[in-house]
Amino acid sequence: MNQRFLKRLQQGRCMRTLKVELGKRSYPIHIGRGLLENGGLWLEHLTGPQVMVVTNEVLAPIYLEPVTRALASRELDVASVTLPDGEQHKTLGSFEHIIDALMTRGFGRDCTVIALGGGVIGDVAGFAAASYQRGVSLIQIPTTLLAQVDSAVGGKTGVNHPKGKNMIGAFHQPRCVIADLDVLDTLGEREYRAGLAEIIKYALIADREFLAWLEQHMDELLAREPQALTHAIEVSCQTKADIVAADERESGQRALLNLGHTFGHAIETATGYGNWLHGEAVAAGMHMAADLSQRLGLISPADVNRVRQLLEAARLPTTAPADMDSATFLQLMASDKKVLNKKLRLVIMAKLGQALLRDDIPSQTLQATLDHFCAGAR
Amino acid sequence: MNQRFLKRLQQGRCMRTLKVELGKRSYPIHIGRGLLENGGLWLEHLTGPQVMVVTNEVLAPIYLEPVTRALASRELDVASVTLPDGEQHKTLGSFEHIIDALMTRGFGRDCTVIALGGGVIGDVAGFAAASYQRGVSLIQIPTTLLAQVDSAVGGKTGVNHPKGKNMIGAFHQPRCVIADLDVLDTLGEREYRAGLAEIIKYALIADREFLAWLEQHMDELLAREPQALTHAIEVSCQTKADIVAADERESGQRALLNLGHTFGHAIETATGYGNWLHGEAVAAGMHMAADLSQRLGLISPADVNRVRQLLEAARLPTTAPADMDSATFLQLMASDKKVLNKKLRLVIMAKLGQALLRDDIPSQTLQATLDHFCAGAR
Repeated sequence: MNQRFLKRLQQGRCMRTLKVELGKRSYPIHIGRGLLENGGLWLEHLTGPQVMVVTNEVLAPIYLEPVTRALASRELDVASVTLPDGEQHKTLGSFEHIIDALMTRGFGRDCTVIALGGGVIGDVAGFAAASYQRGVSLIQIPTTLLAQVDSAVGGKTGVNHPKGKNMIGAFHQPRCVIADLDVLDTLGEREYRAGLAEIIKYALIADREFLAWLEQHMDELLAREPQALTHAIEVSCQTKADIVAADERESGQRALLNLGHTFGHAIETATGYGNWLHGEAVAAGMHMAADLSQRLGLISPADVNRVRQLLEAARLPTTAPADMDSATFLQLMASDKKVLNKKLRLVIMAKLGQALLRDDIPSQTLQATLDHFCAGAR
Repeated sequence: MNQRFLKRLQQGRCMRTLKVELGKRSYPIHIGRGLLENGGLWLEHLTGPQVMVVTNEVLAPIYLEPVTRALASRELDVASVTLPDGEQHKTLGSFEHIIDALMTRGFGRDCTVIALGGGVIGDVAGFAAASYQRGVSLIQIPTTLLAQVDSAVGGKTGVNHPKGKNMIGAFHQPRCVIADLDVLDTLGEREYRAGLAEIIKYALIADREFLAWLEQHMDELLAREPQALTHAIEVSCQTKADIVAADERESGQRALLNLGHTFGHAIETATGYGNWLHGEAVAAGMHMAADLSQRLGLISPADVNRVRQLLEAARLPTTAPADMDSATFLQLMASDKKVLNKKLRLVIMAKLGQALLRDDIPSQTLQATLDHFCAGAR
């Protein structure tokens, strides 16, 4: 990226557009500054005059006004739903709340749902859009780094069940994704770093070169330096877009995107939704997956160290919760969505930059990894 | 149909198979006798060893045992959920109940949901299958005439919202549909006739020849004479299969299948779910649509009489509930799923045997139809 581009970027006059190629359901991901207020960009994706903006109580005071202002200039019927903040509200109850709002306003099949928020809002609003009248239009405006590089792209929507994450949902692709870098300026430290976990994930599963780049630029990313950040978001979104285009409904390689997620979901469920951020749990989970891959003889102890050091550089957790035992891990992992025919399937690393889905991991090897982490060892 | 075929049919050794052509998601509709116990036919469509049979408390004592027996001969993990009977239970609560059962058993993404019941069970179990882990396999075993000729075919699933029918749902095609004629023997009179309403619908929207056939054979159908019944089910399923194959997600001609349904849904909602059977409400609704089509100058008063007489021959209602006024109709119709851009879209008859979707019906003409029926006039 050259200095001229950087300057235009900082002045808010630059935007990059990627595309998720899904035939008739292809859609753009716009990445840049000032996009949220630039309604012209995303208003073209409305399919009718009725618009329901779904956000949460933390974001509403900051972003609801600019978004509705961008919408107000047209002859639109705009309403909003504000949910409580947090993963513990990613429930069927919140889903129903959105459906009720759509029904109360008498919104029709040509209405558009705008998910204005992080992963929780995107997932629950997306599932409501997928289900209302068997499917209405959806625009994703992710307001966290994690949502911009991961959850807002690819069409996975859903809510949690008390016994497992994302157990109820749908594949429902958005009409467009608006990743406005401005919103990251106000993102809390912890949430920001949780987003870095998913960025690191793309490097570990598919891009060794990007891994080396991340190792060199982590300080800049932590400082939210625009040039580095834009590059990291672009590479991440492009990797996700490519994988989704090749395997929309996760019949194959899309599962690789779940590196660290089976361990991570177990941590999230065990600690109660919302106590560990999703990205934090995935970070610890990726380190566990690396450890497991090393025990299987696929990667070296030095590789595991590289993974751990990169996660530590991003100030992410690399160990399981102190009070979580391996029996709890095993029980929660057994209800993971990747379980097929009662066989636990895990994403591991064939090497750094290349993930692999395996359903034949010897139970004693998995046990060794769990014991290592659950003993609190580093 | 010749006598030899009839004999084989009666002896349970004959089956007809139609196909819904949807590319990779194509599936068969098997029509015949003794299919329910003939597990070999539908077991091939299981995608894994875990099977959840969803039925209701009226059907469970009759059909759950034969179905689970057909399943018991294999190394399968079979569970069941029994819901209360009736349209008033087609709710998100019932949906959640099925999801809970799947979670409690730890069923994986390769499990199969079998919807064993009428339209309500098919719709709510279908929506649960569509949403559990973002979609698992579904087999429809419809136990009512209405479900066999309509709701089990075509992939529409969903539940009601207190303010409107089928407002929450998904398109989720089954792996196969098993229409066992034996189950119709024990069907109550009222439910059976409600199924005839949807059969008449296919004639009115797409098949004038079938209309004439129905006028000639209604007595045999009421007597559940196997030869006539098989013909009626086959023609109906074939018409539905053709329309679904051409327009799976109702972006066009599939909407024609809703003849009488906008009026009918208003009746169902106004009278409280379950008081009028769906087919009964659709019957009255089709008569209203015929009346409206006549007022628009599309069909003759004699045509309207033909519609009414056929519905009466099937002993179906042809008028709105005595205590329902036109204001209530209008209000409920305004929240119909076919409303686009706030314009009410109605399926009417261009002529007998040919339906038409219109969004430009003068409000005074619609008002005249409503006043005619709401005045209690015939």
